[in-house]
Amino acid sequence: MAELNLLQKKIMADGRIISGDILKVDSFLNHQIDVPFISELGKIFKELFADRPINKILTIEASGIGVACLTAVHMRVPVVFAKKSAGSNMDAEVYSTEIKSFTHNKVNHVVVSQKYLNGGDHILIIDDFLANGCAVQGLIDLVDQAGGTVEGVGICIEKGFQGGGDALRARGINLKSLAIIEKMDAKSGKIVFR
Amino acid sequence: MAELNLLQKKIMADGRIISGDILKVDSFLNHQIDVPFISELGKIFKELFADRPINKILTIEASGIGVACLTAVHMRVPVVFAKKSAGSNMDAEVYSTEIKSFTHNKVNHVVVSQKYLNGGDHILIIDDFLANGCAVQGLIDLVDQAGGTVEGVGICIEKGFQGGGDALRARGINLKSLAIIEKMDAKSGKIVFR
Repeated sequence: MAELNLLQKKIMADGRIISGDILKVDSFLNHQIDVPFISELGKIFKELFADRPINKILTIEASGIGVACLTAVHMRVPVVFAKKSAGSNMDAEVYSTEIKSFTHNKVNHVVVSQKYLNGGDHILIIDDFLANGCAVQGLIDLVDQAGGTVEGVGICIEKGFQGGGDALRARGINLKSLAIIEKMDAKSGKIVFR
Repeated sequence: MAELNLLQKKIMADGRIISGDILKVDSFLNHQIDVPFISELGKIFKELFADRPINKILTIEASGIGVACLTAVHMRVPVVFAKKSAGSNMDAEVYSTEIKSFTHNKVNHVVVSQKYLNGGDHILIIDDFLANGCAVQGLIDLVDQAGGTVEGVGICIEKGFQGGGDALRARGINLKSLAIIEKMDAKSGKIVFR
């Protein structure tokens, strides 16, 4: 059996399995953010995508922003975060897409100003979780609308059993997840990583 | 006339004055994030609050998260971000408050899990903007509910003419803003900093 990596160990230590498909990691990833730890994950993303000419990171509010910024600080590139609602001072010229959120049980109309995505961009998409893949597919759609290039997708925790990651890989997307959960059990606390 | 500081220079170079009270800085602060630059602001926040025993940074989603994480990475502390809506896997035990958003013209019900704020916490509140001060007042309310201590409030851009910052200072809050705008004019592009 392979040794667990940095994030897998953290999940075993601090994650809480709520049910067969809900893993809570809000003590370090998406409510409280263990910044020194997530910064280490950022370094790993930098290494994983070092062969790609990335000039910008794209993520989606809110829980992707922390890991995106803590990756960008090592890569020395800007972050753009897609917004789920347009405030009164949002630009009128936006790329937009629809992303279904199962956690919040609604469809978000997601936008990025056309100023901050363009045809010359080589984008790394970063997010905290990947389950069914709707958020990443929406972000890819935004890059496609701008004529940019998706160089890769970096995910902290992929729920492998929900299939979204494998669907993206089947499309040829350069997806790398730091921890892929094949199955987990709330009663025993057991997690099987791919 | 005093020389402009790092953020004031950036505002003059890249900010866009839309009207007498709307300044757009979404090219570097709150939509696209110029991570290497904002990381420099994070170092300045670390120095400004170096005399305080801070163990955690509190901010609010979404646009506060980037600057909070890029400050925390220098201070080696975690970030907690208050959430504007509770997903299906949010804890039931939360501190909550109401925060009026003028940008989005609505009142947000804002929550933090009781797990991640407590009586022993010495909190630095960080946010990108301060105008009327509603967001910071709400975050202070959350820390008070937990019995924690607000050691300071660090703001990137304060709209001095809206009075929220001065009201907090009058209450004895240790508020430090990197750029305070006294007035600005959309036609001439002129900005007067305090």
